[in-house]
Amino acid sequence: MLVNVERAARILGEYDDYLILSHANPDGDTLGCAYALCRILQKAGKRAKCLCADEIPYKMKFLTDQVQNQEFEHKTVVSVDVADRKLLGGLNQVYGDDVFLAIDHHGSRTEFAEFTLVDPDAAAACELIYKIAETMDIPLDSQTAVCLYTGIATDTGCFRFSNTTSATHYIAHKLIDIGIPFEKINYRLFDMKSKGRMRLEHEIFENMEFYCEDRVAVSILTLALINKYKGEVDVEDFNGLAGMPRQIEGVEVGVTIKQKDDNVFKISIRTSDEIDAAKICEKFDGGGHARAAGCTLEGTLEEVKARLLPAVIEAAENGGE
Amino acid sequence: MLVNVERAARILGEYDDYLILSHANPDGDTLGCAYALCRILQKAGKRAKCLCADEIPYKMKFLTDQVQNQEFEHKTVVSVDVADRKLLGGLNQVYGDDVFLAIDHHGSRTEFAEFTLVDPDAAAACELIYKIAETMDIPLDSQTAVCLYTGIATDTGCFRFSNTTSATHYIAHKLIDIGIPFEKINYRLFDMKSKGRMRLEHEIFENMEFYCEDRVAVSILTLALINKYKGEVDVEDFNGLAGMPRQIEGVEVGVTIKQKDDNVFKISIRTSDEIDAAKICEKFDGGGHARAAGCTLEGTLEEVKARLLPAVIEAAENGGE
Repeated sequence: MLVNVERAARILGEYDDYLILSHANPDGDTLGCAYALCRILQKAGKRAKCLCADEIPYKMKFLTDQVQNQEFEHKTVVSVDVADRKLLGGLNQVYGDDVFLAIDHHGSRTEFAEFTLVDPDAAAACELIYKIAETMDIPLDSQTAVCLYTGIATDTGCFRFSNTTSATHYIAHKLIDIGIPFEKINYRLFDMKSKGRMRLEHEIFENMEFYCEDRVAVSILTLALINKYKGEVDVEDFNGLAGMPRQIEGVEVGVTIKQKDDNVFKISIRTSDEIDAAKICEKFDGGGHARAAGCTLEGTLEEVKARLLPAVIEAAENGGE
Repeated sequence: MLVNVERAARILGEYDDYLILSHANPDGDTLGCAYALCRILQKAGKRAKCLCADEIPYKMKFLTDQVQNQEFEHKTVVSVDVADRKLLGGLNQVYGDDVFLAIDHHGSRTEFAEFTLVDPDAAAACELIYKIAETMDIPLDSQTAVCLYTGIATDTGCFRFSNTTSATHYIAHKLIDIGIPFEKINYRLFDMKSKGRMRLEHEIFENMEFYCEDRVAVSILTLALINKYKGEVDVEDFNGLAGMPRQIEGVEVGVTIKQKDDNVFKISIRTSDEIDAAKICEKFDGGGHARAAGCTLEGTLEEVKARLLPAVIEAAENGGE
């Protein structure tokens, strides 16, 4: 059953002994939501604790300092930023059936909870946690504000991406008023790179292929390359590389071909305004948004490129029509 | 004479035929201010035009589409984001004596105008232009909002840096409400890099020197390196490289040594919380802020390094004491 913020806040006020679940392969938004909601519920006199199937990424470790998990037998399960119970990862089998309230901002979802609060216009699920705290009339402290800011900054690329709204900035304005070391958070999230990541980016750039007078750039992450850097680059560092080809001046279609298995390749396509990434990916049973879409292709790398690149080049030449 | 926003707005309402001056080597803030103020004055029924001593950088060219310079003989000169008349560059000699109103946000300034509105707490001078428009009761249109957003994003590194305030986000919230393609602006300002810039960054990283178990990183921009990339890298691309050493995970003191002439080197130092960059630079007659400071040293590169590095290493080892 879909509920609004007011109803979700009322539900949270009525029940107790909360277990808050983040999605697997956690990011700043799902963790920021969990820890912020945990603190908010504890301030409301409830017992609350957080759980995630996977380890907290190194860059997000500072978030764990913001909250104290309590020891108790949980009665009420809440999921945050989880669009599908499968995304709970290892926790799905244990808790997937029991989610009472799901709080999320993904436009495309599979419902799995008794009650669901979903707002696809929210740039981050943390915006919804902010609104819940406001509705519950729980004043935010600095630690809670750190968690919420981290989620919002993560999901908007620090207010860069088009999902950012006027409301996103309004909430940031309120969070900064509380007093948070946002510049340190942003350094960790956006500026800081390991030496390994720097080298990996170099190697990807050096091997990038260009087509259509540099309007198309293709980067290829083979298993060999991934394994070469596995020791010095965090798994999370392999995410976020899909933006690289489009970053180069003049590139209108950026393609990242990431090898998942011997003959399986995951394709990410990022485009400028004129070209529809989803349309390209739909030709290969994939999909997504107009500016960012994906698909999976099977075959050797050469076979995959031979199928994919003509469609990409055609789109670049015809503006995606 | 120092004036507040209300007084500055009243002055702007009383006079007419404005020439608005940006600082030389212009950035998004000085240009955003000039073009936004130009539109605001034109909307208030005044004549206004903008001038800058140097060419508009390629990345900022979109700003020139936002405003129409009018043809007329100017009567009133206003400078925006100019901390010292010398920073007017080639325009200083012609107009430096005539500046009637200076609008700026630099904490350390040399006064040169009849009236000065300065607020060092404003992250960008564009915040002051926003407040002036509000006080003059001139509604902002989308083009003006584009200019103001560009200035604010430029000076805050898209809301990343510590100069960002709650008020900065509040203004961004208002500007986005007007409807601006902020994601495109941010792509141009922060994501887009030329191939040359990518290669230059590689080369700088590959030659970076590390000391104190990687807590100190030193990058060296020799004239030879600068000349090597001059053809393919915009001058503006050589700016903004001072942040690179500190970007590497674990680095607490990032040093950039940029050769200005055969035996002249400009030093930029960026530090983490524990180490005072200004204290290091003061030893060499330089100065700046606690997290970012600079100085100039003369001698051969080896001599400069021999003088500079012991002080940097000592600071890294003693937390800057």
